[in-house]
Amino acid sequence: MKTYNVAILGATGAVGREMLKILQQRQFPVGDLLLLSGARSAGKRLDFCGEQIPVSNAQYAALSNVDIVLGAAENDVVLAKTPQILESGAVLIDNSSAYRLDPSVPLVIPPINGADAKNHRGIIANPNCTTVIALTAIAPLRPLGQIRSIWAASYQAVSGAGTAGMRELAAQNRALLSGGQYRPQAFPYQIAYNLIPQIGRVQAQGYTTEELKLQFEGRRILHAPELTASCTCVRVPVMRSHSVAMSVGFDRAVDVQQARTLLENDPDCVFLDDPDNGEYPMPLTASDQDAVLVGRLRPDLTDERRLVLWCCGDQLRKGAATNAVQIAELLIA
Amino acid sequence: MKTYNVAILGATGAVGREMLKILQQRQFPVGDLLLLSGARSAGKRLDFCGEQIPVSNAQYAALSNVDIVLGAAENDVVLAKTPQILESGAVLIDNSSAYRLDPSVPLVIPPINGADAKNHRGIIANPNCTTVIALTAIAPLRPLGQIRSIWAASYQAVSGAGTAGMRELAAQNRALLSGGQYRPQAFPYQIAYNLIPQIGRVQAQGYTTEELKLQFEGRRILHAPELTASCTCVRVPVMRSHSVAMSVGFDRAVDVQQARTLLENDPDCVFLDDPDNGEYPMPLTASDQDAVLVGRLRPDLTDERRLVLWCCGDQLRKGAATNAVQIAELLIA
Repeated sequence: MKTYNVAILGATGAVGREMLKILQQRQFPVGDLLLLSGARSAGKRLDFCGEQIPVSNAQYAALSNVDIVLGAAENDVVLAKTPQILESGAVLIDNSSAYRLDPSVPLVIPPINGADAKNHRGIIANPNCTTVIALTAIAPLRPLGQIRSIWAASYQAVSGAGTAGMRELAAQNRALLSGGQYRPQAFPYQIAYNLIPQIGRVQAQGYTTEELKLQFEGRRILHAPELTASCTCVRVPVMRSHSVAMSVGFDRAVDVQQARTLLENDPDCVFLDDPDNGEYPMPLTASDQDAVLVGRLRPDLTDERRLVLWCCGDQLRKGAATNAVQIAELLIA
Repeated sequence: MKTYNVAILGATGAVGREMLKILQQRQFPVGDLLLLSGARSAGKRLDFCGEQIPVSNAQYAALSNVDIVLGAAENDVVLAKTPQILESGAVLIDNSSAYRLDPSVPLVIPPINGADAKNHRGIIANPNCTTVIALTAIAPLRPLGQIRSIWAASYQAVSGAGTAGMRELAAQNRALLSGGQYRPQAFPYQIAYNLIPQIGRVQAQGYTTEELKLQFEGRRILHAPELTASCTCVRVPVMRSHSVAMSVGFDRAVDVQQARTLLENDPDCVFLDDPDNGEYPMPLTASDQDAVLVGRLRPDLTDERRLVLWCCGDQLRKGAATNAVQIAELLIA
């Protein structure tokens, strides 16, 4: 069987470790595996298929013979490494936000716009995690009409701030229960028993960088240049699955039963919608799987052209690592 | 000074105890105080202004000489007690949902529609807690135009399920940290590290009883019989303040600067809106106070007639006990 040499840039972070796990679970035909990290984590070893693979310092690593680089590092690290990656002939599948709005870089959710990946010039961008989860839940509804606008409120897990975020929530809960304190570091305020309605910095019209992603990334992924999306992004004391409450506006009146059938038959969603019998998506049940859970589907009481729904997805898997590996699968198909 | 004899029905619950505290803090001119509860809590004593007041069994208590009954009990308890209250000549200010949509019962948030209280026939209803908090945040915006529609996603604290809810979240966190389990009782699923997108039972068109309250109660409080509101109500692992992300639609294009000025000058709101400097409402900071914190005010990117905002309020105080005591203050004014 043909194999492909894969490098993971940022291998020791929460998303990098998940990429390693997903490559293994999906039996991606990995030949050589190169794990790269910052100076602090270089020298560690990570398990892949039972082998302990050493982690190298990304700054000094050569990239000879690498076919695919999975980027799980911050923007500045990826930007610094890109010239070397392109020169080596490898394709970069990048999870940072550095290239997402670059018109020469395809931005891809494989089940939605996989064909766009073909036009890459060495870089393919992985969308924001909340965008992947929200669009996976609503893309199946496109046969109902053109999606014109989205109103969304997110409930984002601490894993969005990496392992530091997850460690902080657990440590804070522990400290509070013993009557102590745990000084916030990964987040600006205590996140245990709290909500923080700010993710990213304010960019335009009072919206944060995180809140604008669904609109600008959604336009590219859905090929809907006029799409508008108003989001409120909120950090919640949940470990690793993001949830989104949405109202989706179409260009015509829509029927809930038709929407239900579309979601029930979508291979990337699991439709759970029987609230009186306790059947609905929750972040705890969405964790550690690739499907996006969708439910609470109903008409928007304010407009017959809109539908309201609720979805949950694993931020590290479907929102990041799985999407990147699915792009890699498209490349080698 | 003239005093008024007050009874609290459901005095030992989370809202009842808060009513007791608020009567004291706001120096309501309480004469005799009658504390009523179910059989299980009768015989307890609760502190009021340094005195230990005994709690009586509501089923058998006489109501002679009571001026005001503050209802903090479930619907069935209040419904059973109402004939006796009305016969006694006392006015019932009720926090259950039993009378909220009864056209002969005023439904009142004092700073918004206090004048409606005058037309009571012995009963005045206290709105749902999320409704009080959400409407307190948006009522100041009415000079901008007529409020036509509301899109809301709530982040509701466990106190909404009473002391049992608060106890469960704390106990569950404790059990999970020691590697144990705590079987859900107050909620259908684990609430620690989780979100439960179901509050109340499904009533109409897929909406739960809780989700329909903002529309139906909002119409009465804002005197806006055509108001539409689409809510998604979600339980979050937060102790006692509810938060709501909203998009509010007006009958005309609206200006954010004017909205800002209105909110800054409203006596019932505290406007906190400088995200890059860490200034925004959070449930932790909203707790134990009566103001509703409002922030993240911005234009809705999908419609120039809409504004997006975020608010937090103490569910037990502003959402319940304080509103009831403010109604009592109107009655004696």
